[in-house]
Amino acid sequence: MIVLFTDFGLEGPYTGQVMAVLQREAAGVPAVSLFADAPRARPRPAAYLLAAYGVWFPAGTVLLCVVDPGVGSARRAVIAEADGRLYVGPDNGLFDIALRRANAARLWEIAGNPGPLSASFHGRDLFAPVAARLARGEPPSSLAQPAENLSAERGWPDDLAEIVYVDHFGNAMTGLRGAAVPPGARLVARGQTTIEAAATFSAVPAGRAFWYVNANGLAEIAVNGGRADTALGLAIGSMVAIQG
Amino acid sequence: MIVLFTDFGLEGPYTGQVMAVLQREAAGVPAVSLFADAPRARPRPAAYLLAAYGVWFPAGTVLLCVVDPGVGSARRAVIAEADGRLYVGPDNGLFDIALRRANAARLWEIAGNPGPLSASFHGRDLFAPVAARLARGEPPSSLAQPAENLSAERGWPDDLAEIVYVDHFGNAMTGLRGAAVPPGARLVARGQTTIEAAATFSAVPAGRAFWYVNANGLAEIAVNGGRADTALGLAIGSMVAIQG
Amino acid sequence: MIVLFTDFGLEGPYTGQVMAVLQREAAGVPAVSLFADAPRARPRPAAYLLAAYGVWFPAGTVLLCVVDPGVGSARRAVIAEADGRLYVGPDNGLFDIALRRANAARLWEIAGNPGPLSASFHGRDLFAPVAARLARGEPPSSLAQPAENLSAERGWPDDLAEIVYVDHFGNAMTGLRGAAVPPGARLVARGQTTIEAAATFSAVPAGRAFWYVNANGLAEIAVNGGRADTALGLAIGSMVAIQG
Repeated sequence: MIVLFTDFGLEGPYTGQVMAVLQREAAGVPAVSLFADAPRARPRPAAYLLAAYGVWFPAGTVLLCVVDPGVGSARRAVIAEADGRLYVGPDNGLFDIALRRANAARLWEIAGNPGPLSASFHGRDLFAPVAARLARGEPPSSLAQPAENLSAERGWPDDLAEIVYVDHFGNAMTGLRGAAVPPGARLVARGQTTIEAAATFSAVPAGRAFWYVNANGLAEIAVNGGRADTALGLAIGSMVAIQG
Repeated sequence: MIVLFTDFGLEGPYTGQVMAVLQREAAGVPAVSLFADAPRARPRPAAYLLAAYGVWFPAGTVLLCVVDPGVGSARRAVIAEADGRLYVGPDNGLFDIALRRANAARLWEIAGNPGPLSASFHGRDLFAPVAARLARGEPPSSLAQPAENLSAERGWPDDLAEIVYVDHFGNAMTGLRGAAVPPGARLVARGQTTIEAAATFSAVPAGRAFWYVNANGLAEIAVNGGRADTALGLAIGSMVAIQG
Repeated sequence: MIVLFTDFGLEGPYTGQVMAVLQREAAGVPAVSLFADAPRARPRPAAYLLAAYGVWFPAGTVLLCVVDPGVGSARRAVIAEADGRLYVGPDNGLFDIALRRANAARLWEIAGNPGPLSASFHGRDLFAPVAARLARGEPPSSLAQPAENLSAERGWPDDLAEIVYVDHFGNAMTGLRGAAVPPGARLVARGQTTIEAAATFSAVPAGRAFWYVNANGLAEIAVNGGRADTALGLAIGSMVAIQG
């Protein structure tokens, strides 16, 4: 399976053109859009979101990942392997956290292009054809050169005490894995609001903010029957602290 | 075919993860998202929308339906069969209207889980695997226990004189089937605006509100060349009356 | 492959019902939504957008195109062939530019309906079944009658000096092909802002507006690290002039 993790948006031609390339180059391989609204042009929060959601997929999955504000510049294009999953995209930190958490990790730099390359849409012209070939079973070594993992140089933390995603319901995911928060601890959002843990929405009164470990293992802030983003002023990048 | 009717939104990881489960568990069965923006956390208007759109699909279709504000509480998880279509989702009224209108209806309660169950995402962990197995041909009785239909207890009307959906164009669907409105009758929106019937958009002057029977049989309020929602102040739950 | 170019929006039932028809009538043929947010009810800008994006697909592709404010009126329903691609949709100008630019073009008028026809949803009831049959290999002549191309009567220009689409990032595409703008020329947006060309985002300082030839050959206005639509007041229909 090929999984898309991008900041393209679902509307407009971007996801559709990438899907068309995948259908043409890897006919019969299912392709699913996981996130089309990953943090826009922000690889750092996107890296924590991707690490949490990527591991939900089985080994062998190819993840086509494009959060790429540096498209057209000299940033490297890479294939990263982490515990049997293959990530394809720009080397701007997007894969750092997934690689760091893996028991087995390797990196390749994509050299050369599979075809004509536009200046602004490497997702379609470079990353999608590479992902399709990986999904058809070609090894990374046939498409790219072994490369050094530069992720340590960025010095990003193991867990990120910030909001990394706000969903359709107004729930705000942090970059903190549930296991990084002590049982019974509270979260403090933007230095202003102290939030208790709860097991699920139906365990708290309507209108009450709470945090819980979401279905992919991230600490997430929600309001039962309401929107945490507007109630607490949360957006991608908002700071969160652990109390107690 | 598997059809999704949810309030997940298309963006974010929810529809994508459900699609990934369906691809894995029922490879080769087409899956289509019908509504990802069903009335959020509101099973009552959603039930009328689902009843109108579900019957458009042929017998044998599996409809995976998640409008589930009580996820994590004790509400039942069910399979409902209505005239050969199979609906999978929470027992919170979402299937009441489809069942009531069917010539032949049965209900089963899903007991046990097909795998690990998160507290907050039964759509992915419970309903999608069950839908996939039904789509592969397993009978409901192998996945669930016969159950009593409690829909009568909710006492919802046969047709709902409220707005149940506002679409991308600003058109406002009511929960009234076209046959429930006498020919030539007018609709009164929010007790304020009286609206005449017309056969189609091009039959009324630009800027004029009218109602018509939409392509799935619901009475729908529209403005030719404009938006009915903003022009008339309509949103899900807005009251509509039949006049004449 | 079947490609959707519509103004339906991705949410709501419209794209899903069309996809369901395609799956049923052309099982196994991949269907991809390219634009679900083409210029709403505006065939003129949509025609330039479609012409630029349609040619990216190989010959043999079937493009199902619905920007159809006149649904229910007497406008013709047509199949247009342009350099081996087949376009299906309303004859309201939507195909004029694609036909004009083709080396080989033909037009057929769809006579009769493949099944019951709603007044408001010809995309689902007429155009999708026709597209499916073309994708399965039926010739246009078996579904429609040869017709005269009326596009010259509308008198639209070869390139359109207006904004025809604003994407998710706030980038504003014009209806001007890159080749229609002399090298080094500037664009003037809304008679107010003069914009220099640049090769790519990373070539200009953050916050600076520039124009470039996008990945499908259209002159596009962007702001590095910002949104051109809000910064320059651009929307579909905004005028653009070429200077120098």
